[in-house]
Amino acid sequence: SEQASWSGMVKNTSMRWRLPLVCLLWEVAMIVLFGVFVRFDPEADAHWKEEQHQKNLTSDIENDFYFRYPSFQDVHVMIFVGFGFLMTFLQRYGFGAVGFNFLLAAFGIQWAILMQGWFHSFENGKILIGVENLINADFCVGSVCIAFGAILGKTSPVQLLILTLFQVTLFAVNEYILISLLHVKDAGGSMTIHTFGAYFGLTVTTILYRPNLEQSKDKQGSVYHSDLFAMIGTLYLWLYWPSFNSAISNHGDAQHRAAINTYCSLASCVLTTVAFSSLLQKKGKLDMVHIQNATLAGGVAVGSGAEMMLTPYGSLIVGFLCGIVSTVGFIYFMPFLESKLHIQDTCGIHNLHAMPGLIGGIVGAVTAAAATEEVYGKEGLISAFDFTGDYKDRTPSIQGGFQAAGICVSLAMALAGGTIVGGILKVPFLGDPADENCFADDVYWEVPEDSESSLYHMHDPTPKPAVTS
Amino acid sequence: SEQASWSGMVKNTSMRWRLPLVCLLWEVAMIVLFGVFVRFDPEADAHWKEEQHQKNLTSDIENDFYFRYPSFQDVHVMIFVGFGFLMTFLQRYGFGAVGFNFLLAAFGIQWAILMQGWFHSFENGKILIGVENLINADFCVGSVCIAFGAILGKTSPVQLLILTLFQVTLFAVNEYILISLLHVKDAGGSMTIHTFGAYFGLTVTTILYRPNLEQSKDKQGSVYHSDLFAMIGTLYLWLYWPSFNSAISNHGDAQHRAAINTYCSLASCVLTTVAFSSLLQKKGKLDMVHIQNATLAGGVAVGSGAEMMLTPYGSLIVGFLCGIVSTVGFIYFMPFLESKLHIQDTCGIHNLHAMPGLIGGIVGAVTAAAATEEVYGKEGLISAFDFTGDYKDRTPSIQGGFQAAGICVSLAMALAGGTIVGGILKVPFLGDPADENCFADDVYWEVPEDSESSLYHMHDPTPKPAVTS
Amino acid sequence: SEQASWSGMVKNTSMRWRLPLVCLLWEVAMIVLFGVFVRFDPEADAHWKEEQHQKNLTSDIENDFYFRYPSFQDVHVMIFVGFGFLMTFLQRYGFGAVGFNFLLAAFGIQWAILMQGWFHSFENGKILIGVENLINADFCVGSVCIAFGAILGKTSPVQLLILTLFQVTLFAVNEYILISLLHVKDAGGSMTIHTFGAYFGLTVTTILYRPNLEQSKDKQGSVYHSDLFAMIGTLYLWLYWPSFNSAISNHGDAQHRAAINTYCSLASCVLTTVAFSSLLQKKGKLDMVHIQNATLAGGVAVGSGAEMMLTPYGSLIVGFLCGIVSTVGFIYFMPFLESKLHIQDTCGIHNLHAMPGLIGGIVGAVTAAAATEEVYGKEGLISAFDFTGDYKDRTPSIQGGFQAAGICVSLAMALAGGTIVGGILKVPFLGDPADENCFADDVYWEVPEDSESSLYHMHDPTPKPAVTS
Repeated sequence: SEQASWSGMVKNTSMRWRLPLVCLLWEVAMIVLFGVFVRFDPEADAHWKEEQHQKNLTSDIENDFYFRYPSFQDVHVMIFVGFGFLMTFLQRYGFGAVGFNFLLAAFGIQWAILMQGWFHSFENGKILIGVENLINADFCVGSVCIAFGAILGKTSPVQLLILTLFQVTLFAVNEYILISLLHVKDAGGSMTIHTFGAYFGLTVTTILYRPNLEQSKDKQGSVYHSDLFAMIGTLYLWLYWPSFNSAISNHGDAQHRAAINTYCSLASCVLTTVAFSSLLQKKGKLDMVHIQNATLAGGVAVGSGAEMMLTPYGSLIVGFLCGIVSTVGFIYFMPFLESKLHIQDTCGIHNLHAMPGLIGGIVGAVTAAAATEEVYGKEGLISAFDFTGDYKDRTPSIQGGFQAAGICVSLAMALAGGTIVGGILKVPFLGDPADENCFADDVYWEVPEDSESSLYHMHDPTPKPAVTS
Repeated sequence: SEQASWSGMVKNTSMRWRLPLVCLLWEVAMIVLFGVFVRFDPEADAHWKEEQHQKNLTSDIENDFYFRYPSFQDVHVMIFVGFGFLMTFLQRYGFGAVGFNFLLAAFGIQWAILMQGWFHSFENGKILIGVENLINADFCVGSVCIAFGAILGKTSPVQLLILTLFQVTLFAVNEYILISLLHVKDAGGSMTIHTFGAYFGLTVTTILYRPNLEQSKDKQGSVYHSDLFAMIGTLYLWLYWPSFNSAISNHGDAQHRAAINTYCSLASCVLTTVAFSSLLQKKGKLDMVHIQNATLAGGVAVGSGAEMMLTPYGSLIVGFLCGIVSTVGFIYFMPFLESKLHIQDTCGIHNLHAMPGLIGGIVGAVTAAAATEEVYGKEGLISAFDFTGDYKDRTPSIQGGFQAAGICVSLAMALAGGTIVGGILKVPFLGDPADENCFADDVYWEVPEDSESSLYHMHDPTPKPAVTS
Repeated sequence: SEQASWSGMVKNTSMRWRLPLVCLLWEVAMIVLFGVFVRFDPEADAHWKEEQHQKNLTSDIENDFYFRYPSFQDVHVMIFVGFGFLMTFLQRYGFGAVGFNFLLAAFGIQWAILMQGWFHSFENGKILIGVENLINADFCVGSVCIAFGAILGKTSPVQLLILTLFQVTLFAVNEYILISLLHVKDAGGSMTIHTFGAYFGLTVTTILYRPNLEQSKDKQGSVYHSDLFAMIGTLYLWLYWPSFNSAISNHGDAQHRAAINTYCSLASCVLTTVAFSSLLQKKGKLDMVHIQNATLAGGVAVGSGAEMMLTPYGSLIVGFLCGIVSTVGFIYFMPFLESKLHIQDTCGIHNLHAMPGLIGGIVGAVTAAAATEEVYGKEGLISAFDFTGDYKDRTPSIQGGFQAAGICVSLAMALAGGTIVGGILKVPFLGDPADENCFADDVYWEVPEDSESSLYHMHDPTPKPAVTS
């Protein structure tokens, strides 16, 4: 499958040797590293009965599995169904959207368990994993799915696997700096997942800028059914976001509160998205792109603050603003970013993850700085911000400062990392598609005949004279 | 987008100012009211640690979050994915089905938290919310989604938001009368959700009767893929219905029992639906409309009785009957209701929610009246029907009477409320579509070109000469 | 609807009397048998409060409902959405895939509750059911869904209901032999569900061999959108498989461990599936059939071992191998099985369930045989393999032998049972479709017009004169 590019260059997009090689190499490395390093957490280990006696746990229900497994499954659905189907809006890139998301996430969670394990769960030379590690791995991969949104349709699966390897690595480093060194609270990942993932992806897509991409602009749109498939993704992301933001919060009231705050923010966000989608279009008609994406911004923006005492009305306000910012971003900022800054952002992650992620970081910093013993209770304040051990003298306002620092670190890591990784992805021979073959599944997938003959060209039925001549 | 109606009237369906105005007005009101009234329930508040000490709770797992959050998420999926996709069966109203359901539910849950909060969770001037409030808000909105099914394709989003405001209000009043004043048990909402929601919606659609609707009859059918999308909705409603009916039951055996009874009723219902769908069609072929809808009637009809000792075989019998009633309703009653009573019921909610809801109310009343200490145990009977405090002298047979009264109150509220709200929705300038534009997304949505040019007219590609001639 | 077959035989596929009769007969039998036998488990019975006092349970959260209900719901989704949508890949058999799967599963779970109840939950003449029975019923029906995959598109719904009746019966017998007599561990059902279900289905389809099936070969392919619908099934199976394999494991560490092992195996499996799908195709393009199916083999193959100390890296290795075996099976074995052994396997269950099921049985046997007190702890070893009562002297190596015996018994039961049931299904008058009507919904379903006129023949656009001229 050599493809003559419009620029005269011949691109070899055949994956026959490169993709299997990378997949097998990556996976063998995982097996070796898991063999050397990964063991079960005590709560998942067969010795747990003895552990229970020692800890005087009265019941099996005290196992962390029962606190977090339902949330884990919701997060798991978000990563694979949510992100995967959200990106099927492209009329002829559904296989790539769901399939490549599946591939990179399945690899990414393995590498994330190792990277995050070395930083956070490393004991006596072993990484001990339990359900919380699975959630954190999904979170980490979530940031890769976000970045994938910016380059959707423009990269080969080999490039995506290389991107995943590097982005997961950088994610873990950034997360370690924020959570362990700066002692930042970011349970829903406004900074670590969204800000980092989005600016990383935007930087990569800028480095991979394709000046002649308008040649495949016709394929960048949706068709009626692809928009419905995308709504499956949207709704599962929207529905399970309360689980996302509460999944790794402290047991008890913190998980409970994080779910409620997220629920409120998301509900509010839907109304302002609809309002501005209608208001800013000439005929007042709603645009599915906004409904599919901007309605989710409210979940992003309470990713740091949801487990704090943000309060339901505080959450409504955050959602209110983010629906507006995100919708306005799609209508006004996105064309500007592409034409002026050469940022080709296929899914509009700048509107859904980057800006709301930054807002989320700020909301977290302000909410932390405003915390008082009156609102949290003495014990509650210590517990909510983990002001114990080395951090027992930290005050809410100092915490707010560190939260703000976390935003800056995440941004810096994303921009620097994205630049480097974007450069790596420009290495030739990684099999990226020619400009005119972007956003089309038939480059990397066996596509059923019907699509090539009819559905594919449904909106453009003229028999492509350029090809026959 | 002014549209000349066949009746010569010109309808202005542009939402450009009206929809944003209503969305923003409604949402600002929510923020103000949440700011004044809504706070966290003690179990979601940062003071919970202190609460725990006082209550001698030994473990964080005692937080209500862990009893109810998995059920909440299942209910949440039912409202947004279940109802949303169930209604995508219309060939060119998929955006409206999923999108408007999303919009009205996102607004409705906020208003429901307030309305239900004032009635049930109001302490010292504040509404204290926890996971149970979120479930109840979803329940309340479920009744709006049901009513939406009757008017699907025939109203503007502005009308839907006004409908939601009023219906949620009336729902909360009706629920208060039933649960608090009559002390009725209705955990799965046969009366409060289904009977009320369905008869309310049927009354509204009767008030909004469109005599010339057959002009858009061709769009009221499904296409092959839209029927598959609808099955996503059906299956998620069917699968998660045990969570729906058990979500707010008492902790322990009541939740457990409600889930089992619902599971049994639903399983049985599928078989009689298939039997009667095949039996009553000329060629014995199955009709997707029945499979999509009547299979769910079994869940509706155990909404009051599921948490009682209805028993598995009792549930099978209820499901058995409801599959028949609902399928027969689609084939025989629905055409009759439309032609004789002017009830244009797009989704057939009369068959799925109204009749099974009434049956559910009766099943609940009979099951309650038949309760004995032998079957429930002394303590179990008191706990199951909450025969404590003011109600400590109530007997099962009296309870059965009150349950029956609950059906009547729900019906009366629905008919009266539906009449009033239907009248309000007839106010001009709310942007409802002309008859010939009903059931078509392009009135309120930016629709990708393909649909208008091809998919939309796929089954009828000739430019309708028969109609113009 | 009499159809002239190519062989000259006339097939009567009308279901008008046969299907309703079977459905109603089956369901009435269920009601009678449930009435006589099925009651609530103590944890779902209203007497539970008293039970709690006796057992000194301190909290309602000790009810088994809270240990297993979230897993149950995930399994429930897998059976109805997972299997149902996985089979929608056929371009014109979506209604049959989702609808018949729905029908047979809804009947099967009822019959499974009875059959499994008599063997495992029978006390004082009553079957006492709780959430674990619901999970086991879903598991049992899972094996029928698997078998359905082999005969998909080639049988009538009446045949499917008869198949379900017999297969559930045999499943329960086989399960009883394995779990109760051989004391085998098989929590995720590598042997009882996958090996048994797949070889049973493959035997049935061999008995029902249709030599002239290539007449409908054109309909056996997918179209673009049907492949996306199938991915909904794939992803939900993949995502919830950790719940499947852990759903009935012992409380605490065993459930926790089973989920982690399954997660690891599945992740690894995706990478080798992608590698071999690309490697073994001429142009290196990925095939959706492999992505839809082989990625799941890793979950099948840890069905016995997941709750044991298989370890994360052991799971990665199992997944690694199964992705390869399964993909190679699709490319090389499947055509061979059809041409040489007359096994017409519509969905390729040999690759996804049969071979990985056998591997899973072996992995379980080896993992059990290799168990040591050092790895499990003294108490942990006894608990993991339930070496108590009659089995208190059993050693890991003996357990390994019994596990291996379990594989053989499952295989033998499947082959013998499949032969008998296949024979029964050959009885005339069950309404199976003629060869040229296989894989087409319009035999048993009212199909919207559009599909017959356009979508259905989209891939076979013979008229197309405009293009050739």
